[in-house]
Amino acid sequence: MTQRVLFLPGDGIGPDIIEQARAVLGHANERLSLGLDFDEALVGGAAIEAAGTALPDDTMSRAREAGGILLGAVGGPKWDHLEMANRPEKGLLGLRSGLGLFANLRPAFLYPQLAEASSLRPEVVSGLDILIVRELTGGIYFGQPRGVETLESGEREGINTYRYNESEIRRIGRVAFESARQRNGRLCSIDKANVLEVTALWREVMEDLAREYPDVELSHMYVDNAAMQLVRDPNQFDVIVTGNMFGDILSDEAAMLTGSIGMLPSAALNESKQGMYEPCHGSAPDIAGQDKANPLATILSGAMMLRYSFGMEGAAGAIEKAVQDVLEQGLRTPDIHFEGTQLVGTRAMGEAVLSAL
Amino acid sequence: MTQRVLFLPGDGIGPDIIEQARAVLGHANERLSLGLDFDEALVGGAAIEAAGTALPDDTMSRAREAGGILLGAVGGPKWDHLEMANRPEKGLLGLRSGLGLFANLRPAFLYPQLAEASSLRPEVVSGLDILIVRELTGGIYFGQPRGVETLESGEREGINTYRYNESEIRRIGRVAFESARQRNGRLCSIDKANVLEVTALWREVMEDLAREYPDVELSHMYVDNAAMQLVRDPNQFDVIVTGNMFGDILSDEAAMLTGSIGMLPSAALNESKQGMYEPCHGSAPDIAGQDKANPLATILSGAMMLRYSFGMEGAAGAIEKAVQDVLEQGLRTPDIHFEGTQLVGTRAMGEAVLSAL
Ligand SMILES: CC(C)[C@H](C(=O)O)[C@@H](O)C(=O)O
Ligand SMILES: CC(C)[C@H](C(=O)O)[C@@H](O)C(=O)O
Repeated sequence: MTQRVLFLPGDGIGPDIIEQARAVLGHANERLSLGLDFDEALVGGAAIEAAGTALPDDTMSRAREAGGILLGAVGGPKWDHLEMANRPEKGLLGLRSGLGLFANLRPAFLYPQLAEASSLRPEVVSGLDILIVRELTGGIYFGQPRGVETLESGEREGINTYRYNESEIRRIGRVAFESARQRNGRLCSIDKANVLEVTALWREVMEDLAREYPDVELSHMYVDNAAMQLVRDPNQFDVIVTGNMFGDILSDEAAMLTGSIGMLPSAALNESKQGMYEPCHGSAPDIAGQDKANPLATILSGAMMLRYSFGMEGAAGAIEKAVQDVLEQGLRTPDIHFEGTQLVGTRAMGEAVLSAL
Repeated sequence: MTQRVLFLPGDGIGPDIIEQARAVLGHANERLSLGLDFDEALVGGAAIEAAGTALPDDTMSRAREAGGILLGAVGGPKWDHLEMANRPEKGLLGLRSGLGLFANLRPAFLYPQLAEASSLRPEVVSGLDILIVRELTGGIYFGQPRGVETLESGEREGINTYRYNESEIRRIGRVAFESARQRNGRLCSIDKANVLEVTALWREVMEDLAREYPDVELSHMYVDNAAMQLVRDPNQFDVIVTGNMFGDILSDEAAMLTGSIGMLPSAALNESKQGMYEPCHGSAPDIAGQDKANPLATILSGAMMLRYSFGMEGAAGAIEKAVQDVLEQGLRTPDIHFEGTQLVGTRAMGEAVLSAL
């Protein structure tokens, strides 16, 4: 693995936010002599337009050669009529699965400066700091058989398959236990073990693993209850671990508790710490190219990349500090703007982080 | 179908709350000459203890003979170690499937008197009134194949299958469109059509159906986005329709937005309007038998039964009015108690509703 960073702008606001993150990383690279080299490629709808497929071979081989990948966003209404197999999302899913990026880390963190943006009462979200560990290359997202079949009766039936084997569960479990160990030592595993056999096995494997991590306090919660508890009292959680589908739902719910989904980065890692990093928010096609998107989640995803894939803790911290500084200065893109703060565009926000660095 | 009501107290606080609901329905029955007759049977953990199975044949045949079933709650830690097939939940799932109760109606409604109990900001939840229509007898809850297998490698794999055919989707779709027509004419169908083929078929069938309901405005949303939007701005929704698993998660999330899950009733109906009614909350074993549980969701479930299964709109309205009255009087069980209101137990709350009636 080289010290190469691959930028994948993708669709919608993807190019707007990647441009700023690339500038910030470029600056850090020079000033701190990180020795990174940069590459860029197409994915998602942009790749469909240019090359007829959401994940061109050229992109996949560049991805394999990169230590870290920074992705903007994929998808948009333009491609919504396409068959499942040809959609922009297949680019994202193909990268996750092709590179074996099984461990998705999604922090939900409340910036004290942005507490007003949350739809929850301040006393409920104050101090919010949860890490969701989502399994990303298995479960119902990838299970076979799948598809739409015609039954003997002549009507159609849709089928997907939810599968996990013990080693898949153990692998993501270890990442979660290790993360909990480095945080507050509490891990909550989410399943639907009272109804779904696959998640009863999940619970059993987590219980087994817990013996190796006596310093971590493991609890279990049904997914419906977890969706409630995140609203009722999110501060009860430290680290959450769950499968691909439940993780998709709960991580978005948790992110929205902060009110500032434009601030939240994420990482998807494989066994060798190669990683793909992306903001939690989507492609927001309605504001694409209008200098309105918030580039901070992408910039923070870049910082996560330096930390997790390149072990550059110092540089990561410096970028995170610069983001804190611009928030302190009162600069706000439209999604986090409220009275008494200064409204700025995507570019001005990126430049402010760069200056603060 | 007779005018028979079957009470199934079940486990935990189930007997506490069913006792109060039975008294209120009994009173309404006499005073308004409704002509109902009452029956009672075992289900869940209570049935496991007494008869060795969560759904005894005797219970199933009494259930078939009832026009309406009022269920307390099932499950508890005492039975958590049991195999999937022998758990209390199997009693509930067996009733749903055995009686064909495919249409689950779960209202999430904010009582203005209880707005303080919500963890959301008052301006975000004020006026909240959503109806979630959840498919209840199909999807991944019942799909075959399922179970835990040993692979050739010697390790185990868990499997569940997510299936829907067109007629199952159309059947629940009609209930949702009809409900939207009787409310504010807006229906949001929730799926994960960008990843799961079975939900792409779901979306297609909903689109088809929409042509028959030109007065209803149909929209679609991915489940991860829905979990976010419920937190961000729940008032954007009128009626939501979704499958069994997503419905389980989203209806609990929506219920918790009100902060008063002890207030929310639900109905599960089949084609002939036979129905099983239950509170949205669970069996809360930690407070069972302590005169602490809130009986209002169960009493309101009884009102829903009179309305949907017996067409007794007047009697249903009278019970709902009586519940409003006790809230106005300031009576509160512990779950909805706050300063300046009067703390009462399960029995006192039930008796207050009875007097108000
Ligand atoms: C775009 C989509 C395929 C993706 C997912 O469902 O994983 C997204 O929602 C996410 O969470 O990264
Ligand atoms: C107890 C359990 C089987 C049930 C379900 O998942 O359907 C419950 O959570 C519900 O929502 O009624």
